Amino acid sequence: MTNLTGELSAAVRNVANFPVKGVTFKDITPIFANIKLFNKIIDAFADKFADLKIDKIAGVESRGFLFGMPLAVKMNIPFVLIRKKGKLPGDTIWASYNLEYGTAIIETHKDSFSEGEKVLLIDDLLATGGTINASAELVRQLKAKTVAAAFVAELAFLKGRENIKDKNIEIFSIIKY
Amino acid sequence: MTNLTGELSAAVRNVANFPVKGVTFKDITPIFANIKLFNKIIDAFADKFADLKIDKIAGVESRGFLFGMPLAVKMNIPFVLIRKKGKLPGDTIWASYNLEYGTAIIETHKDSFSEGEKVLLIDDLLATGGTINASAELVRQLKAKTVAAAFVAELAFLKGRENIKDKNIEIFSIIKY
Repeated sequence: MTNLTGELSAAVRNVANFPVKGVTFKDITPIFANIKLFNKIIDAFADKFADLKIDKIAGVESRGFLFGMPLAVKMNIPFVLIRKKGKLPGDTIWASYNLEYGTAIIETHKDSFSEGEKVLLIDDLLATGGTINASAELVRQLKAKTVAAAFVAELAFLKGRENIKDKNIEIFSIIKY
Repeated sequence: MTNLTGELSAAVRNVANFPVKGVTFKDITPIFANIKLFNKIIDAFADKFADLKIDKIAGVESRGFLFGMPLAVKMNIPFVLIRKKGKLPGDTIWASYNLEYGTAIIETHKDSFSEGEKVLLIDDLLATGGTINASAELVRQLKAKTVAAAFVAELAFLKGRENIKDKNIEIFSIIKY
């Protein structure tokens, strides 16, 4: 894990003043071009959650898709899409959240989760925790249970971990800033 | 392949009047929850392009990510993000295109492709071909070469295949409507 943290840290690019002035953005796109490193991340997630008997993995659009779908393949677990408002056809449920910069609504299909299912949420970045709170709310609306949330990177100074309302959710991140 | 087409056809949901009235949307989200079927799709792509000596796989946000990243893992090939305008931090190039409903700009990083690299583009759906033309333009701007474009489904009645400007691109889709 220590080696993985170091490799990840070396791969992430700092981009100044994105998406707004004063914010230094952690650009993780180089990870996707480094398949060996990418596989180590997926393996780290799969190892971490192997014993939790997860029923569904849910990824948040769109960088959560990039990690979530390969993890679902690796763990042989169904994958659920959590998307921005208006993107999913058919019957959906929604929840709203505050981003680090702005506000938004996310949706999932009404049949994404079933009662009692154990759900693992996945996204690239834990910032303020708003997206995860809203995602966990979607899971709750369908009477399933978010047992864990996994992130590649955690911006610890934003205190997202403390802001996550449901204290039963296990929070896991590979690298912390 | 015939079996796969049948399974896929059974999994895709028809949603009337989405995203606008009069359009019947082919909803592929059930595929992601069916990991066995999903793996067959990835295997079909990997088999199809095994001999093309692809240097990079590029996926179009965001459903292209869902198939492209697992395919990149399967084929052990670097994955490149093609995103909607304003989403990628750092230095980018752009191209514009007409969607089936509307207009948009896509971007990729300036270092996404290198001169002479062979690129496989991947997206969920071949509709009018606009997204793929713009994606191929991004590849061309960086002096790389799009050798193939892969889709889960092709809306043949929209003639996207004929609309793809670069006739050297091999077009592959698993299911046709």
